[in-house]
Amino acid sequence: MEPVLLYDTTLRDGTQGENINFTVEEKIKIAQKLDEIGIHYIEGGWPGSNPRDKKFFELAKKTEFKNARLTAFGSTRRPGILPGDDQNLKCLINSETSTVAIFGKTWDLHVKLMSNTLEENLFMIEDTVAYLKGKGREVIYDAEHFFDGYKANPEYAMFTLKAAVSGGADFLVLCDTNGGTLSFELTAIFKEVKQKLNGNSLKLGIHTHNDCGLAVANSIEAVNAGAVMVQGTINGYGERCGNADLTSIIPILCTKMDCACMSLENLKKIQKLSRFISETANMIPLNSRPFVGKSAFAHKGGIHVSAVIKDPRAYEHMNPEIVGNSRQVLVSDLSGKSNVEYKARELGVDLGNNGYDSRKIVARIKEMEQQGYQFDAADGSFKIFLEKFTDQFKPLFELESFRVTIEKDKQKPCSAHATVKVSVGCKNEITAAEGDGPVSALDNALRKALHKFYPDVDAMRLVDFKVRVIDGRDGTAARVRVLIESRDQDNIWSTIGVSEDIIEASWQALADSFQYKLAKNSSIECSG
Amino acid sequence: MEPVLLYDTTLRDGTQGENINFTVEEKIKIAQKLDEIGIHYIEGGWPGSNPRDKKFFELAKKTEFKNARLTAFGSTRRPGILPGDDQNLKCLINSETSTVAIFGKTWDLHVKLMSNTLEENLFMIEDTVAYLKGKGREVIYDAEHFFDGYKANPEYAMFTLKAAVSGGADFLVLCDTNGGTLSFELTAIFKEVKQKLNGNSLKLGIHTHNDCGLAVANSIEAVNAGAVMVQGTINGYGERCGNADLTSIIPILCTKMDCACMSLENLKKIQKLSRFISETANMIPLNSRPFVGKSAFAHKGGIHVSAVIKDPRAYEHMNPEIVGNSRQVLVSDLSGKSNVEYKARELGVDLGNNGYDSRKIVARIKEMEQQGYQFDAADGSFKIFLEKFTDQFKPLFELESFRVTIEKDKQKPCSAHATVKVSVGCKNEITAAEGDGPVSALDNALRKALHKFYPDVDAMRLVDFKVRVIDGRDGTAARVRVLIESRDQDNIWSTIGVSEDIIEASWQALADSFQYKLAKNSSIECSG
Repeated sequence: MEPVLLYDTTLRDGTQGENINFTVEEKIKIAQKLDEIGIHYIEGGWPGSNPRDKKFFELAKKTEFKNARLTAFGSTRRPGILPGDDQNLKCLINSETSTVAIFGKTWDLHVKLMSNTLEENLFMIEDTVAYLKGKGREVIYDAEHFFDGYKANPEYAMFTLKAAVSGGADFLVLCDTNGGTLSFELTAIFKEVKQKLNGNSLKLGIHTHNDCGLAVANSIEAVNAGAVMVQGTINGYGERCGNADLTSIIPILCTKMDCACMSLENLKKIQKLSRFISETANMIPLNSRPFVGKSAFAHKGGIHVSAVIKDPRAYEHMNPEIVGNSRQVLVSDLSGKSNVEYKARELGVDLGNNGYDSRKIVARIKEMEQQGYQFDAADGSFKIFLEKFTDQFKPLFELESFRVTIEKDKQKPCSAHATVKVSVGCKNEITAAEGDGPVSALDNALRKALHKFYPDVDAMRLVDFKVRVIDGRDGTAARVRVLIESRDQDNIWSTIGVSEDIIEASWQALADSFQYKLAKNSSIECSG
Repeated sequence: MEPVLLYDTTLRDGTQGENINFTVEEKIKIAQKLDEIGIHYIEGGWPGSNPRDKKFFELAKKTEFKNARLTAFGSTRRPGILPGDDQNLKCLINSETSTVAIFGKTWDLHVKLMSNTLEENLFMIEDTVAYLKGKGREVIYDAEHFFDGYKANPEYAMFTLKAAVSGGADFLVLCDTNGGTLSFELTAIFKEVKQKLNGNSLKLGIHTHNDCGLAVANSIEAVNAGAVMVQGTINGYGERCGNADLTSIIPILCTKMDCACMSLENLKKIQKLSRFISETANMIPLNSRPFVGKSAFAHKGGIHVSAVIKDPRAYEHMNPEIVGNSRQVLVSDLSGKSNVEYKARELGVDLGNNGYDSRKIVARIKEMEQQGYQFDAADGSFKIFLEKFTDQFKPLFELESFRVTIEKDKQKPCSAHATVKVSVGCKNEITAAEGDGPVSALDNALRKALHKFYPDVDAMRLVDFKVRVIDGRDGTAARVRVLIESRDQDNIWSTIGVSEDIIEASWQALADSFQYKLAKNSSIECSG
């Protein structure tokens, strides 16, 4: 199969997603990462549309891209003027990129909505492309709303493509802009178009949207039908339901379609890239994201786990390491012995020496999960649970007492403060702190107290906090489950607490989190 | 196109997803909602595998399902024993469902991994199916790992299907259990299998997984190739990258494939169902989820907005109301006004007399929703909000102050108590109470205090209490949303509170709840 070119529009179409915003510096960093991993085209932005993108291209002139062709995006010229007089096109030229991507109207409906004529639209396409070619640019023509336009008026849609061809376009990219085209429709149209264009030198690309959950499938089908360029974003970020997710498409093309678009060495970096982009975008990474998600290779059911350990092919469609991911074995009430043993090994808890009975452990897990514990979401607490169960637990601090008070007067907001007393070996520390609420106050106070003994606690921070009322029908007396996610420079870990008292539950999760971190550091001397 | 049967496995395969856990009562509620919306088959669980599922089927016997066929899931019998002696199958029979779903091994690799013979596996399939048919059950046979098995050894794969047919299976469901099959491969295999089976009465189904981001596409392709049953979950919850997302598949089948699987009236409820399931699972609803996500029809760009208003077809692949969703236009929201007026009427708040500006109300609502309020889930608080906004609010008590204290000593559990001071007219009442936790203590103290003035508060009780951390990345300082559901003999109402302090948020929701109840009773004399 012919190699496929990867065209990333995270920095342009991706930013049209709700909550996705990058600073100029972040855009440069992302562009460099995309370049490093071997993306062929990086669509950096729309310089004619907003000042941030203009600035990006300024800065990019001083940046070296080893592999990728930086691309500036814009519209065909406005009706009734010359390309050279169009502000938008001036910005494109000024961005000094090797490649430009132009979008034009394919659907007669849009042309009419914009109060334009069908003919003028064709001229706009042809002479914009020709103008940019004349300026020495590689030109990618994005046929907007192509599939809807083709369904409504196939003849006109073909005219728009031919206008781009006449102008000298290097690529024609068919865009499913509304995201509503089904895979079998798209495949049929793509093949028809390829045939009607009837030129082997013509390079077709595909740009899909995920409004029906079919963006990845549609891109794959298009490649199968002859597309040599795929446009998408990392993590599928984009407007509405997002763009085609390159973190799915690239592994599929490389490993399942014999389609050389990225080296296997670079493919291993794709999970890291996915996380870099989600961190930078301040989006919570989707654990269930294919290939790169934390849970993409996470096995829960007991039967699955024993089979996976014997032969990974049995329950995994590919080796997770190919994309830099790893197998996860979850423990829950669906577990069997093998889950527990696997997990214990992974967490570095030696079950063997203490004459444990893993069936007893499994039984206890099931019991606790009935009460509301959820160990598959709390590795940190599970490790501590195993250590306690096998008498290997070495607490790095002990709680002596705490008191949390919340006060409210009339219309003033609540104020919360906590006093915590802990002991480490022979020494005590009592301290107090305020917080945005009782749990925050408790967290701050505990951290303050532990800092006296373990300055390293500064390196860790809480990054997620979840509360679940286990059965709301007990009203305000209901049991509550608190899950906390924490991280330091190297690791992420989760801990859990369950109680009718949300403060007690939060305490359990917090204490486990600090214990886990400190045990990791194995720092057992008192420094206070 | 032939109507397609919708088979939901949210309660079984869905629960194999990380962090997805339902109590038995929640499973019953979900099953009822699935039944109401017209799902044809509800796979309730695996009674032979865990006590929670067994309990579910017990409870389900007392539950009436108007449309759906409740289905129990399990494995073929163990090797070397009779079906009647198999514990798993006994559980299936005891669940007393009309339908059972059996999964069996298709891939010779799995048979060998389980140290079984290829022949015995075929017997296991045939006689398990025959046994269950003999017990009067409708039998759905799930051919596990079908596509991988067929690729490896097509002959054996077909033998397994034929064994199920010989046993009398009503449906054969081809499962892409590893989730690694590409759409064009799946379509080709499905067509081949259909042809090889060569019987028009044979009903084929499809069960896909999302490990390549193709679960929805693969299900659609299978329907196109002749599948009459689609198995999936609401919101695509499930192991690893999830199951096929029914909230994508159902709208596609109904609106784009002329495939009658759900009435249009029920289709309008699909967004609500999606949210109910995500709330119950305590999963953050994915805004970018096709069709039902909050952002699925959210238009950001200025050009889009004016075009969308002129002709929605221009930028929307379908009318959002078909799935109970709504267009989000981030510039202005003309539809907001009518919603507010409708709701006010419904809640008996007269907006007309106070010279209100409903655009201001809409703006304020949007502001508050940005902070985390969710008025569509809290009618009680919304009514109070409208009354306050239009200066019609008559508070039946005022908070003077409260203090909540939680104490913990070493290994003892937490103890919580609250002191509350309220005033009604000229009189004050201060009282204290204990509780299972701080919120419970506050609730008890407030109730005690109000009882002095309004004995009627005894008739009301809290029936549900939900806590949601709005953005966990702020850790323990994150804003929290508390939703409370209360009822008396006649009514149910919901109230909400939002704050960084969970006690403050709970206070808001509690106070609104009592206010709503007391206002209903219109009892304004002091009785204390």
